[in-house]
Amino acid sequence: MEQQLPSKLLQAAVDELSRLPGVGKKTALRFALYLVKQPRADVERFGHTFIALRNEIKHCSVCNTLSDTELCEICGNSRRDRSIVCVVESIREVLSIENTRQYNGSYHVLGGIISPMDGIGPNDLKIDLLLERVSRGDIKEVLLALNTTMEGETTCYYLYKKLREFDISITTIARGVGFGDELEYTDELTLGRSIKNRQPFAPN
Amino acid sequence: MEQQLPSKLLQAAVDELSRLPGVGKKTALRFALYLVKQPRADVERFGHTFIALRNEIKHCSVCNTLSDTELCEICGNSRRDRSIVCVVESIREVLSIENTRQYNGSYHVLGGIISPMDGIGPNDLKIDLLLERVSRGDIKEVLLALNTTMEGETTCYYLYKKLREFDISITTIARGVGFGDELEYTDELTLGRSIKNRQPFAPN
Repeated sequence: MEQQLPSKLLQAAVDELSRLPGVGKKTALRFALYLVKQPRADVERFGHTFIALRNEIKHCSVCNTLSDTELCEICGNSRRDRSIVCVVESIREVLSIENTRQYNGSYHVLGGIISPMDGIGPNDLKIDLLLERVSRGDIKEVLLALNTTMEGETTCYYLYKKLREFDISITTIARGVGFGDELEYTDELTLGRSIKNRQPFAPN
Repeated sequence: MEQQLPSKLLQAAVDELSRLPGVGKKTALRFALYLVKQPRADVERFGHTFIALRNEIKHCSVCNTLSDTELCEICGNSRRDRSIVCVVESIREVLSIENTRQYNGSYHVLGGIISPMDGIGPNDLKIDLLLERVSRGDIKEVLLALNTTMEGETTCYYLYKKLREFDISITTIARGVGFGDELEYTDELTLGRSIKNRQPFAPN
């Protein structure tokens, strides 16, 4: 696949598709050949969908999540508890947490995570917007729900330093052994912490 | 991901992207979120590329490969040997064979392979176009280069039956143990055939 494709149209499509994360030239070619076989109307809609997405999508003015409207569905829902804010990296974690149906508060989407390796510092994230929300005084709890990676921990610690000046509780999602995990194969750090932070046994 | 996304724009993009072969909802969402972060002009180009591909690409009138022009680059190249035709399933195999730089003949792209399971019969492939080419009398050899699957073998046999009435040689790519393969892990059929069809040792 080092050489150029014999068709410039196909080459252009492969070049565009291989820009997608995790897509190489071979996969991009498979995608392009699939599109060639689809009805014209379907491919028209395929192409225009992304242009509409990019041109029309907004970031919620309160929580920064992607939304079709100025205020997202969750922030605009009066039945959600606005006194608790769950801080996440992206809309993906919002969706994962919503899927659990265990959370009825609001969110704050940072739009990334502090990662010096990728050149992403605190100023690249929507941290000011979060501090502004908290400074208004209606928020009682900030729940930090970031990935348990080095970058996630760094970001949590940065946020903690910024947030502790406010009179709110700062919490983080429970770390421990996942459901269905076997202790034998659980890494030492996770297992060690789950013993240290042991909880009263609650049958049910 | 069973639930609908909170944004209709994002949902539409995810629906479109998850139609691509091998792309699930999670991957489609990753692609869509990537696109949201790109400059508008890039996404415009991204979308329009596929529409142009679908509306403007042609099938070469001689060999049926995808081409920007009525006659593809290979069929239009007078330095290629037109007396030999390599029959392949799709343009992907054309590219693989071109990459080897071992072949200077022409191609014939069937546009698929006989596969009753997928409802693809001989009439769905460009077999008539091949027979028409051969019947013109300029072709001396047809090289069958199909995958060594059940469907590939069936298609080879079908083509053989149709082609043997012409005064041409019908060949197939050599089957055997691949370079770098360990005999211990080679399947019995391949190993057995490679012993039966053993060749004179040619140092080089």
